[in-house]
Amino acid sequence: MSHNSFGQLFRVTTWGESHGPAIGCIIDGTPPLLPLTEEDIQPWLDLRRPGTSRFVTQRQETDQVRILSGTYEGKTTGAPISLLIENVDQRSKDYGAIADTFRPGHADYAYHAKYGIRDPRGGGRASARETACRVAAGAVARKVLGSGIVIRGALRQIGEHAVADENWDWAAVGNNAFNCPDAAMAAVWENYLDEIRKAGSSIGAVVEVHASGVPAGWGAPVHGKLDTDLAAGMMSINAVKGVEIGAGFAAATLRGEDAADEMLPGNDGPTFSANHNGGILGGISSGQDVAVRFVVKPTSSILIPRRSLDQSGAATEVQTKGRHDPCVGIRAVPVGEAMMACVLADHMLRHRAQIG
Amino acid sequence: MSHNSFGQLFRVTTWGESHGPAIGCIIDGTPPLLPLTEEDIQPWLDLRRPGTSRFVTQRQETDQVRILSGTYEGKTTGAPISLLIENVDQRSKDYGAIADTFRPGHADYAYHAKYGIRDPRGGGRASARETACRVAAGAVARKVLGSGIVIRGALRQIGEHAVADENWDWAAVGNNAFNCPDAAMAAVWENYLDEIRKAGSSIGAVVEVHASGVPAGWGAPVHGKLDTDLAAGMMSINAVKGVEIGAGFAAATLRGEDAADEMLPGNDGPTFSANHNGGILGGISSGQDVAVRFVVKPTSSILIPRRSLDQSGAATEVQTKGRHDPCVGIRAVPVGEAMMACVLADHMLRHRAQIG
Amino acid sequence: MSHNSFGQLFRVTTWGESHGPAIGCIIDGTPPLLPLTEEDIQPWLDLRRPGTSRFVTQRQETDQVRILSGTYEGKTTGAPISLLIENVDQRSKDYGAIADTFRPGHADYAYHAKYGIRDPRGGGRASARETACRVAAGAVARKVLGSGIVIRGALRQIGEHAVADENWDWAAVGNNAFNCPDAAMAAVWENYLDEIRKAGSSIGAVVEVHASGVPAGWGAPVHGKLDTDLAAGMMSINAVKGVEIGAGFAAATLRGEDAADEMLPGNDGPTFSANHNGGILGGISSGQDVAVRFVVKPTSSILIPRRSLDQSGAATEVQTKGRHDPCVGIRAVPVGEAMMACVLADHMLRHRAQIG
Amino acid sequence: MSHNSFGQLFRVTTWGESHGPAIGCIIDGTPPLLPLTEEDIQPWLDLRRPGTSRFVTQRQETDQVRILSGTYEGKTTGAPISLLIENVDQRSKDYGAIADTFRPGHADYAYHAKYGIRDPRGGGRASARETACRVAAGAVARKVLGSGIVIRGALRQIGEHAVADENWDWAAVGNNAFNCPDAAMAAVWENYLDEIRKAGSSIGAVVEVHASGVPAGWGAPVHGKLDTDLAAGMMSINAVKGVEIGAGFAAATLRGEDAADEMLPGNDGPTFSANHNGGILGGISSGQDVAVRFVVKPTSSILIPRRSLDQSGAATEVQTKGRHDPCVGIRAVPVGEAMMACVLADHMLRHRAQIG
Repeated sequence: MSHNSFGQLFRVTTWGESHGPAIGCIIDGTPPLLPLTEEDIQPWLDLRRPGTSRFVTQRQETDQVRILSGTYEGKTTGAPISLLIENVDQRSKDYGAIADTFRPGHADYAYHAKYGIRDPRGGGRASARETACRVAAGAVARKVLGSGIVIRGALRQIGEHAVADENWDWAAVGNNAFNCPDAAMAAVWENYLDEIRKAGSSIGAVVEVHASGVPAGWGAPVHGKLDTDLAAGMMSINAVKGVEIGAGFAAATLRGEDAADEMLPGNDGPTFSANHNGGILGGISSGQDVAVRFVVKPTSSILIPRRSLDQSGAATEVQTKGRHDPCVGIRAVPVGEAMMACVLADHMLRHRAQIG
Repeated sequence: MSHNSFGQLFRVTTWGESHGPAIGCIIDGTPPLLPLTEEDIQPWLDLRRPGTSRFVTQRQETDQVRILSGTYEGKTTGAPISLLIENVDQRSKDYGAIADTFRPGHADYAYHAKYGIRDPRGGGRASARETACRVAAGAVARKVLGSGIVIRGALRQIGEHAVADENWDWAAVGNNAFNCPDAAMAAVWENYLDEIRKAGSSIGAVVEVHASGVPAGWGAPVHGKLDTDLAAGMMSINAVKGVEIGAGFAAATLRGEDAADEMLPGNDGPTFSANHNGGILGGISSGQDVAVRFVVKPTSSILIPRRSLDQSGAATEVQTKGRHDPCVGIRAVPVGEAMMACVLADHMLRHRAQIG
Repeated sequence: MSHNSFGQLFRVTTWGESHGPAIGCIIDGTPPLLPLTEEDIQPWLDLRRPGTSRFVTQRQETDQVRILSGTYEGKTTGAPISLLIENVDQRSKDYGAIADTFRPGHADYAYHAKYGIRDPRGGGRASARETACRVAAGAVARKVLGSGIVIRGALRQIGEHAVADENWDWAAVGNNAFNCPDAAMAAVWENYLDEIRKAGSSIGAVVEVHASGVPAGWGAPVHGKLDTDLAAGMMSINAVKGVEIGAGFAAATLRGEDAADEMLPGNDGPTFSANHNGGILGGISSGQDVAVRFVVKPTSSILIPRRSLDQSGAATEVQTKGRHDPCVGIRAVPVGEAMMACVLADHMLRHRAQIG
Repeated sequence: MSHNSFGQLFRVTTWGESHGPAIGCIIDGTPPLLPLTEEDIQPWLDLRRPGTSRFVTQRQETDQVRILSGTYEGKTTGAPISLLIENVDQRSKDYGAIADTFRPGHADYAYHAKYGIRDPRGGGRASARETACRVAAGAVARKVLGSGIVIRGALRQIGEHAVADENWDWAAVGNNAFNCPDAAMAAVWENYLDEIRKAGSSIGAVVEVHASGVPAGWGAPVHGKLDTDLAAGMMSINAVKGVEIGAGFAAATLRGEDAADEMLPGNDGPTFSANHNGGILGGISSGQDVAVRFVVKPTSSILIPRRSLDQSGAATEVQTKGRHDPCVGIRAVPVGEAMMACVLADHMLRHRAQIG
């Protein structure tokens, strides 16, 4: 058991606090002989990096990753891969004023209740900065999976404004500041988020991640289900409050004859009349696209004062000053992709172990 | 790692197929000196038992549990607890006709793709019958948690018919055939499900489970989060396609000032203005009720023929004959409660290990 | 984590007490499509069974194993395999007199100190009867390994009487009551053990287990070493107080030039000038025979009274009455083989996971 | 599962190669509020550091440790502790000549057979340099255990020259270059090792580690035994080929009446007539000193040429040039202590989890 590890065979252990000297992770179990240098990891980190538009936090972090172990002459050796990212912008004075205060909606109170001590600088261990390590690990996971498996994420919804299936265009995702698969919706979101940003508020969002090319057969009963691990992986991302596979909560209103995803003969294995099951049947991949959605709550770091308590239990008010993310869901997209990659890489190895 | 185990310190390993001689589980890590006999477990199993109304499958299983190890003179000894439930009603002829056919929406094809072999009798290992073991384990978990933690589940929604918060009454749950917390809605569901049942169809549902009395401080960052394990636990239940904590997907439309759950001084620790976070902040319990919802898809075992394939890949049609569950969500309620109990018992021990 | 489980991917969880209704184990992670029936397991159990000669305990146990899950039509399905062995000879009156007494050298006191409760009937969970489950699991592990890997065990030493390397003959092992690889030494042991048995005493022994046919490359750095897991596996057997790989403790007196196992060109991979390393280099198999030895202390269940305490802490005397094992090392041989098989099967799967 | 992790609840994951930029470890599960700075760790590293006498390798490494996470204002926070030690003396030219050669007795061939790639610089991941991370982790484990548990190690034997029990003096250990508990024997070893060193050879050794103050009750049946984990921990140290608890292999020649460690009333719990069981009964601590011994083989890095193969399979000769350790057992003493500390800290937390 390890509170800070994820995966069984492709196993990622992350460490580090928001305002400590560095953050990082160890990836254990990577197969040998995979080409791997910092150049394979950095581009994914750059997608998650803060400060890239007015819709994400202005904290300046270069997020430069270094590989400290596990490779030799540009290839993995099978030994544990240690990745390190130094923290550059440690403006802890931003947070000093609230060291004795529990920010509502944040982990401050829960950490204090558990540990009797917490690193108040930027949320410490509970900071979303930790997700940079997941993105880095996801880059290695993609190497394990190979080019046959394509993982793509997008922002499906901000507030009430959701992208409709018929307008979904993966190609649009990289062309706006929101990871939005619908150019028209991106324009709507721009105005909408500007209003929220100027009001000092924040808003929730829904992220969707697909993996295509996953062969039928990955996953396992009963507690080793692929969807179980995807649910765990996504729910462990900061601010996530819900996870769906395939039709998700819409399945509550489906009748059996509509939900069954009929099977039809295909040229290369079966084809399916629909994908309500999100590519997973009985916890095992079916060959269809693996499709996951998760919801990200609005950050509680807002300019609007909220009632709260200080560490003595006395009433106080909390108001975040300075930079904040009006919609943390935007930067959660590469994190969701990374968790999908890590879960799939783990299950690829687990499948290979049992089946050969 | 173990595909068929759940939990780190309160660890449950289940085994058995729908139509084998028996099913069962091993519970390892239980503290010693807890009073435990079959009478502590059987009532929970009886709640999940099939054949109790016309709205659940008519399979006749007595689901009598035996404790084979881990207790001495009615108390736990700290040794692994082995529970065994014999399969009584093994009418495998019901299933014989479809041994060569992949039932759409079921795990048949995925198991075949993975293992090259499957036990076709009643779904084998993929049968929801496995959840009886979870319910039995949940009964032991409740003993570990003690009477201060109260776990309650109910059916929130069938099809389009959802119970409104203002009509929610826990006391109503045991008074109808649906685990419905609203007597008026139970009447609606009765007619609705009768129509679906007579049509040979099935329908999805949403289950909600609450735990009150959980102290602040259980859970851990970053991959040991309480909500991570709840998501995994619920998603591992058969037919579940989504899990929410607190506000869940509704958080997508919340603004930061509304979602923050303000903290106020209370007589016994802080009180909160709301519980959008479902009792969990940063992965750690806050002292509020832990609140989880999950969606159960409609079973694909319906009397309406669906297109499918046989094991040779040829097109065929599948139609379930005989008994079936029009809404498997009904019997998922005690299973959800049991998973809540198991996750909490595990985190209680994990918390005690690190914090003392 | 699980106190009562062993192995990572070929994972065995055992349960049961000496005088409960049954003992058993769950084996999770077995590859599918391996032929497996009770007939594949029973012969190994029969080798460990008590009551087969005057040199082992006279407890009458048939040790009949039943497969309750995980196979279909005589083949493994990849689902967890549940094995059950009923306890037949539960003569707990033999043990009643000592329920309040801590037998010196036994686990009684330690269990009491830990749990505040213990099953005093025959040692409860601490009974060597648990090793029957390991032997059963080992039979399944041999199926996983296939016929190319041959695992053989023998008793190397009883008291001061050790078999010399030059007299070692694997073919002799089955021809005497001691699992002795040297017919002449078996005759010596017969007289020696008769004396000890009649004196109501017991004696220690050394067991040696070899595995041939293990390919180079199984195992892993740094804590996944093959020898690490062999040491753990053997040390977890009741009464074992030491484990050696290859030269073992004799390596203390070797000089570097003698210990190095020089490598020479061979027809089928390298050959070695010696095997001081017991087939393992840096935790990874080298292709030589994997060679392990472990020491089994004399049982403390003897007819000679020893000073001890009762549960109140008062001085008393303990004297075992009735049947006992003059040399528990004899029956530890098939257990050691089984642990070797389980460790190798686990590492075979772990190797396949990472390397493919 | 993680090849490079050790422990269940006090969990140490190490990474790094001998000649990479750095080595390090993550320690997860540490209780909060323990005072911890680099000054608590560095002294233990200094005891293991190379270059301190002519009897250990002359590689110059300062082994300065940095804490990168998991503490705040000098106290542990419960978050994972990341420790980093930079590699300073990376004279990889020393090793260049043997990049294509398998050094006999080393892990070169086995790594190559497994991974198809290896970092040849100083043994890469298989280097004993990795043990610095264990020593650092051990320092943290001692903090977890507190001052009531005293862990001491010493070199029991070099070659044929063993310290007798009656000459054992823990106070002598720090007063010689060998961690020898007998000043007279240290003088013998000095001459003996000088001869071996000048001959370009090396010699094996036996290390003994004791822990006093361990309360009765730590450990667990059947695969969670304290001795099981001690055996695994010690066997995972580089070059170790055997582990003993208490009487160890000498138990083979003991009769039951001599081995039983009679129990007698004491002022503070029971006392024992002897400690043949090394403080562990049935896998659980008895309150006596926990006593472990392990054997370290002579290093194969010697100036005497040995026959070997190159990567093409052709015969060659290997001769180590430059610095080497005539007896690696000397520097294994603090490593053995550290593994004892890590195992005990893990079991302290595991015990607390189940028993409270």
